[in-house]
Amino acid sequence: MSGTLYGVGLGPGDPELLTMKAHRLISSAKVIAYPTLAGGNSFARAIAADVIPETAREIIMDIPMTTAREPAQAAYDKGAEKITRELEKGNDVIALCEGDPFFYGSFMYLFARLSDQFKTEIVPGVTSMTACAAAQGLPLAARNEVLTVIPGPLEEKTMAARVDQADSLIIMKVGRHLPKIRKILDAAGLSNRAAYIERATLPNEVRLPLTSAPETAPYFSMILVTKGADAWL
Amino acid sequence: MSGTLYGVGLGPGDPELLTMKAHRLISSAKVIAYPTLAGGNSFARAIAADVIPETAREIIMDIPMTTAREPAQAAYDKGAEKITRELEKGNDVIALCEGDPFFYGSFMYLFARLSDQFKTEIVPGVTSMTACAAAQGLPLAARNEVLTVIPGPLEEKTMAARVDQADSLIIMKVGRHLPKIRKILDAAGLSNRAAYIERATLPNEVRLPLTSAPETAPYFSMILVTKGADAWL
Repeated sequence: MSGTLYGVGLGPGDPELLTMKAHRLISSAKVIAYPTLAGGNSFARAIAADVIPETAREIIMDIPMTTAREPAQAAYDKGAEKITRELEKGNDVIALCEGDPFFYGSFMYLFARLSDQFKTEIVPGVTSMTACAAAQGLPLAARNEVLTVIPGPLEEKTMAARVDQADSLIIMKVGRHLPKIRKILDAAGLSNRAAYIERATLPNEVRLPLTSAPETAPYFSMILVTKGADAWL
Repeated sequence: MSGTLYGVGLGPGDPELLTMKAHRLISSAKVIAYPTLAGGNSFARAIAADVIPETAREIIMDIPMTTAREPAQAAYDKGAEKITRELEKGNDVIALCEGDPFFYGSFMYLFARLSDQFKTEIVPGVTSMTACAAAQGLPLAARNEVLTVIPGPLEEKTMAARVDQADSLIIMKVGRHLPKIRKILDAAGLSNRAAYIERATLPNEVRLPLTSAPETAPYFSMILVTKGADAWL
């Protein structure tokens, strides 16, 4: 009997936003797996740190810092091989995923490699998207509003078109794309309604009107443009 | 000192998908509040049932079954008054919210009425959107893909335009709008890629290709049209 691969969403960062299910699975884990970026610390591991048993074996997929596709894919290939060996021995493997595994998460890369061969269960988590809205006190969408989720790295012309079409919108993974995003929101006349949030739910959370946001943003930052609750009074 | 109003996301239905924080707040609640529809059972209360203390006072907002705006608004006005009396006495009030409070949730109505006067904290929850994707084994979106969230009641022409513009899309609150949605997805050539999910994470969960879905759908149903993980191999 092979083990089960669990893709476990950890939520946006506050360890108390782990689900009861994530807590149960991680606290009894024999094997955990997670990615790191260029030998840095793993944000996913940090979220779950207090729950991971000392005895758990850790499979670390170190992703090189490059926009090229191949080196990252090779790192996931190697990680998938190690996970395969554990699953074949009958051990369950808990893959730690920031936010939700299927919402712009890197777990896709493991899922694509392993879910055909092994029983795989996804445990959904709180996304950074709703956590940012909660922190900001800005309802994301209600009633018949369409919500558009836009990744920051999207090419400028495409992003501008998406922004123009949107009712409520959220731009994820802002990072080094902030100047481009400012330009697009300015052109659309939305900058005064936009909220900027870094590291929602963490002790170093930052929330500012976009017009007062810094020039450079970390990867874990977002911009929200919503109508707010008054629209539904 | 007034009490704090907590808008607490309960996740999609499986009680184990409550966050640790939701569990802590509900299990120590003195006062909870939640809506019911036309005297029916509250889905939100059912999700949290095993956690609610026997001693908790319950403020029930009974929403009449009508598409007219006023009767529902009056029910929220009345609920907000009762909540105000508890908060003014210094009691915290835990508002129970299916999914996430700010993601197409009715908590907006309380938030709009009370957040100016009282300290209000939103506890984000797992949305039915990512829970459906997890149940279905269908990654929602990755990398530079735009995700469009469309409410089922949206008017036909507008919905058709949104569907045509979308990369990955999810249609929420399908219910009685299923025939219209089928028609739109057929016209867009997407029906063969669409997954239908009812009551994700509950014991009576239903998952079918849209082409095999029943003629009528409950309110808590969704349709997913995504590329799937193979697109990221």
